[in-house]
Amino acid sequence: MNRKASDLDRLAINTIRFLSADAIQKANSGHPGICLGAAPAAYVLWSRFLRHDPSGPDWIDRDRFVLSAGHGSMLLYSLLHLFGYNLPLEEIKNFRQWGSITPGHPENGLTPGVEATTGPLGQGLANAVGMAMAEAHLAARFNRPGFGIIDHRTYSLAGDGCMMEGLTAEASSLAGHLRLGKLIVLYDDNRISLAGSAALAFSEDVEKRYLAYGWQVIRVGDGNDLEVIAEAIAQARRETGKPSLVMVRTVIGCGAPGKEGSYKTHGSPLGAETIAKAKAAAGWPGREPFFIPPEALDHCRQAAARSAEAAVKWAELFQDYRREFPELARELERVTIGDLPPDWEAGLPRFPPGSPPAATRVVSGKVMQALAAKIPELIGGSADLNPSTKTALEGFGDFQAPGTRAEKLEGIVGKDWGYGGRNIHFGVREHAMGSIAVGMALHRGVIPYTATFLVFSDYERPAIRMAALSKQRVIFVFTHDSIGVGEDGPTHQPVEQLMALRAIPHLAVIRPADANETAQAWKAALLERNGPTALVFTRQDLPVIDRDGRGPAEGLLRGGYILQEAAGGKPEAILIATGSEVGVALEAAKELNSAGTPTRVVSLPSWELFDRQDEAYREEVLPRRVKARVAVEAGVTAGWERYVGLDGAAVGIDRFGASAPAEVIFEKWGFTTGAVAEKVREVIGKQ
Amino acid sequence: MNRKASDLDRLAINTIRFLSADAIQKANSGHPGICLGAAPAAYVLWSRFLRHDPSGPDWIDRDRFVLSAGHGSMLLYSLLHLFGYNLPLEEIKNFRQWGSITPGHPENGLTPGVEATTGPLGQGLANAVGMAMAEAHLAARFNRPGFGIIDHRTYSLAGDGCMMEGLTAEASSLAGHLRLGKLIVLYDDNRISLAGSAALAFSEDVEKRYLAYGWQVIRVGDGNDLEVIAEAIAQARRETGKPSLVMVRTVIGCGAPGKEGSYKTHGSPLGAETIAKAKAAAGWPGREPFFIPPEALDHCRQAAARSAEAAVKWAELFQDYRREFPELARELERVTIGDLPPDWEAGLPRFPPGSPPAATRVVSGKVMQALAAKIPELIGGSADLNPSTKTALEGFGDFQAPGTRAEKLEGIVGKDWGYGGRNIHFGVREHAMGSIAVGMALHRGVIPYTATFLVFSDYERPAIRMAALSKQRVIFVFTHDSIGVGEDGPTHQPVEQLMALRAIPHLAVIRPADANETAQAWKAALLERNGPTALVFTRQDLPVIDRDGRGPAEGLLRGGYILQEAAGGKPEAILIATGSEVGVALEAAKELNSAGTPTRVVSLPSWELFDRQDEAYREEVLPRRVKARVAVEAGVTAGWERYVGLDGAAVGIDRFGASAPAEVIFEKWGFTTGAVAEKVREVIGKQ
Repeated sequence: MNRKASDLDRLAINTIRFLSADAIQKANSGHPGICLGAAPAAYVLWSRFLRHDPSGPDWIDRDRFVLSAGHGSMLLYSLLHLFGYNLPLEEIKNFRQWGSITPGHPENGLTPGVEATTGPLGQGLANAVGMAMAEAHLAARFNRPGFGIIDHRTYSLAGDGCMMEGLTAEASSLAGHLRLGKLIVLYDDNRISLAGSAALAFSEDVEKRYLAYGWQVIRVGDGNDLEVIAEAIAQARRETGKPSLVMVRTVIGCGAPGKEGSYKTHGSPLGAETIAKAKAAAGWPGREPFFIPPEALDHCRQAAARSAEAAVKWAELFQDYRREFPELARELERVTIGDLPPDWEAGLPRFPPGSPPAATRVVSGKVMQALAAKIPELIGGSADLNPSTKTALEGFGDFQAPGTRAEKLEGIVGKDWGYGGRNIHFGVREHAMGSIAVGMALHRGVIPYTATFLVFSDYERPAIRMAALSKQRVIFVFTHDSIGVGEDGPTHQPVEQLMALRAIPHLAVIRPADANETAQAWKAALLERNGPTALVFTRQDLPVIDRDGRGPAEGLLRGGYILQEAAGGKPEAILIATGSEVGVALEAAKELNSAGTPTRVVSLPSWELFDRQDEAYREEVLPRRVKARVAVEAGVTAGWERYVGLDGAAVGIDRFGASAPAEVIFEKWGFTTGAVAEKVREVIGKQ
Repeated sequence: MNRKASDLDRLAINTIRFLSADAIQKANSGHPGICLGAAPAAYVLWSRFLRHDPSGPDWIDRDRFVLSAGHGSMLLYSLLHLFGYNLPLEEIKNFRQWGSITPGHPENGLTPGVEATTGPLGQGLANAVGMAMAEAHLAARFNRPGFGIIDHRTYSLAGDGCMMEGLTAEASSLAGHLRLGKLIVLYDDNRISLAGSAALAFSEDVEKRYLAYGWQVIRVGDGNDLEVIAEAIAQARRETGKPSLVMVRTVIGCGAPGKEGSYKTHGSPLGAETIAKAKAAAGWPGREPFFIPPEALDHCRQAAARSAEAAVKWAELFQDYRREFPELARELERVTIGDLPPDWEAGLPRFPPGSPPAATRVVSGKVMQALAAKIPELIGGSADLNPSTKTALEGFGDFQAPGTRAEKLEGIVGKDWGYGGRNIHFGVREHAMGSIAVGMALHRGVIPYTATFLVFSDYERPAIRMAALSKQRVIFVFTHDSIGVGEDGPTHQPVEQLMALRAIPHLAVIRPADANETAQAWKAALLERNGPTALVFTRQDLPVIDRDGRGPAEGLLRGGYILQEAAGGKPEAILIATGSEVGVALEAAKELNSAGTPTRVVSLPSWELFDRQDEAYREEVLPRRVKARVAVEAGVTAGWERYVGLDGAAVGIDRFGASAPAEVIFEKWGFTTGAVAEKVREVIGKQ
């Protein structure tokens, strides 16, 4: 594919630069520096290597390109437009305006060809690692001799900011460990960050660091030398045993007279005058902003057309594949769309009354095991906590690079599965774990889950936000969900995390009360096709609630339900509880009902699911007339006023935890039948 | 100090091991593996190198020792007890029990000699970086020729888990950049993590990685060889131009027959039988648990006494210093205690009505500038966002390693200040920034602040939690606090972060409404002596509220106050708002009041500060009888029921943001006089 840089190449690169600069200028907002500096590298990649089909951006075997330096969104939009994606020039003229599909940072799902929502630094690179992992797994699952149905590369363009983020370090270390040979990261090494020279804070040897991770590192000394860039990418593609970092030395704001190499081009428009000078210096033929030389457009579109031939060939191959392996072909189509198998629910365990008490994390493990057998696309792991989170899928192998020492290690769940294994050892890397899972979901073909302790949801939080923002079905498992953690103490006891997760839009947070709600919680998570779910489980044993005369656990699917009606059917008080505190609420209600205070118990495992119900249902569960409401949850109380109002109260924990056996802490802090019942009486007394 | 390992040394090491194992066994909970494996290295450090005074654990010039692998808490408690800190054996017998000072993970402020609250992996190492930075800064500020008043080392013990966390990568990269020669990290390289062999997820070359960061790396091949360990630490101490990583190859659970090297010793008690076997194999003289050989205790106490002589010498030196530099000595004492200078408030700017509109971030910058001149211990920086967060202290220099290239760079605020500079360039490393600030605060002598965009508080969140949990005065500045970010779009627009920060116990979150509230917000933050504050500022300009006939901005110090009384003084409705939405609330109230609905406006910049007020004050501001309440805040609404109840409403944003000019988004989403007034009428209509 290599050839000498032509005048056409240069024209096309300048088109990318000026289209970007003009759009940023018109919006009077944006980041021109990277668009100018990294245009040649991006252009070489797109025009000579990227295997994609702009008219079919959902093709499962396309190469992925993730702009990790998301502030360079105009660079991406320019490429998308020039290479023929459905992104009209009008949208570029409306860069960063209300209702456009060209927002300030790229958003997956909004703009055709945008593979990931990026901007928060490091996320895109970690997403790319996840995409490469999904590719490796799907290849192991679906490819057959002569049928490399899944065989594509994942590219990412990252900047200095990405390189400084710990998230990138975690993701890169894991990518090296997993020997993801089809992952290629272009590093826009311009040595400038928003606040000045990157050297003000960054003097490490990035090359040596990536070698330490087990990557191939290739240096490009001049980011304007197209042939050297092309050879570097080619070399990266030849190395299939490890990921590659191509360090492209660039000049930020390249081509902007008087501003080249300055941090001032990082995040501010160049100004009309500078743009005019830059165009003059480049011998630019256009007089108006947004001018696109027809020959440059044509050149890019031709490159895209050549690339799209691969999609045609792939479609032919897939026809043959379908003939040879009809079931596999159907499976691939199903998992690509994201449909669940028809009988996926069949194996969901039920727990009859009288079953022994069990921690919901343990029950979750059993449920996962049943689901894993039915849903082969379920894949994930924990941040070095499998023995605690109970999230290993037994009998489905470890996800490891084939033939490596790691693959031979006796893990929790079996060795020698290569990339076909479904248990990912993320290591103690919560943040990357989350972002990788988002990348896997974005790739399509798998349903990823992650697991850690609830308190460490804080470490993973930026990734959870990205999952919610880009509406991806990622299942975040969090165990050890309260002071029930016990002896590990306040550093490991979540108190504010539940409420903080509930604050994230589009994230369903579910904290089931017993084994049967736990099974339903997993069901709900899998049904959340267009968004992530946080499943929150206990460390400690909980009784299986006897449902006789009580609401069935399926009520969880509506977020909240009447678990137990008040004596006589006319509640004067309502106890609302979640998770492990439902048990104490039931006990307290028993006491209150027999003492003549008709008290209803509402199990409210998920605010999000409940708030989606129509008003009639919500009124049925929490009738407005009943003002005596007490919430019981082992977490911060601020927020519970949403359901108990100003006339109610919440039994909770408005401080950090304590190190002691769990039952001691629960008792000391008022999670007892007596204290909860007393709180209800207090609330009634005030009305 | 070197000498051959003696029988006494071996006895002392076994004392540490068995004391730890016994305590964990009795608690039936804990992490014995590291206590056994890392005991020799920790013992060598403590007995031969650590410069401390167990009877005076607050001595400002002591060496710091931070157990980053906080799950090894019993190792630390054993050391503290043996070396004579005020930690009686009874407390060790009560390890992990209610009311003990030996919680599951070490907690600063609870246990004498515990320098940092650790457990969440990576935090301790990053804290240690912060401590070393504080040391370097205080040395630059207070030392004079012949008076090395501040001259101590910071040690940290970290494990494989720490090494995998991105936080550690960020902090280590910055430590290398800053050439923190007095920082020494012992890496307990046991290659085992909770879920099995670390090699399941971790195959990078840690040595090479740290060399890439600019550290000295020293390998110790046998973690039981005391002389090699001692020589490694000595070598680390000789290198003063860069931080040192001492990689100590250890065997987890060393000395526990049949369990050595197994991940099963990581987080579970060894069992009585294994302990008995281990003691037998070691020729242990004690029959009962918690036996401490008197000669071992004596040996450790003698080592501590030798070390404490340094404190005596230091006190003498300080007497001379006081004579020579009385003002400096007083200053050092003041900043060590944490008192503010007497006239610190004098420079707080006031903004008269009619002042031009200004973004609160810009005002904050001016306030900081005034405070910086009065409070020399105020030091901090941003995660590569100084031009945006406006947090540079002009005229106070960059904090950089003296004589390095970074020091010579023209930063935002001046070069050649060495470690005496007060502007820290954290780089794009939000998480480490927060944890480093916590470490600086723990060190004492400085008041650290950090800055980034509010949306990236998610990246910093685990550190914010640690600041709150350990009650440290860290000031977290967050700018770009809403959809007011505008064109950068949803990836950069916080919507859930305010509510999520409010959920953290002991964290004061303050979102001021105008310039004068901004000055008060900084005042409040500095007055929060025993806890962190999050200051939340706008990107966009806000008018300076005319206080004529309105509540003064000092009301902020009470969290919330009546900014404007209803017409006639008898409110029928209350508008509650924070930050940039106070303006629209005032406008809406004007409309409502003149249309005959007496409406009060309450500015509620800080829930935490308001909730601390007595009930009478809260009732005065938000009288129970007024049920028609509408909150206005450009963030998620769930949570506002705390103040508006079930009868009120909130104007907010229950979705992610949008990319467009800020004023367009505010208007589209109902932050207008008309829409807010209409919401009040709606609420009144429902009553």
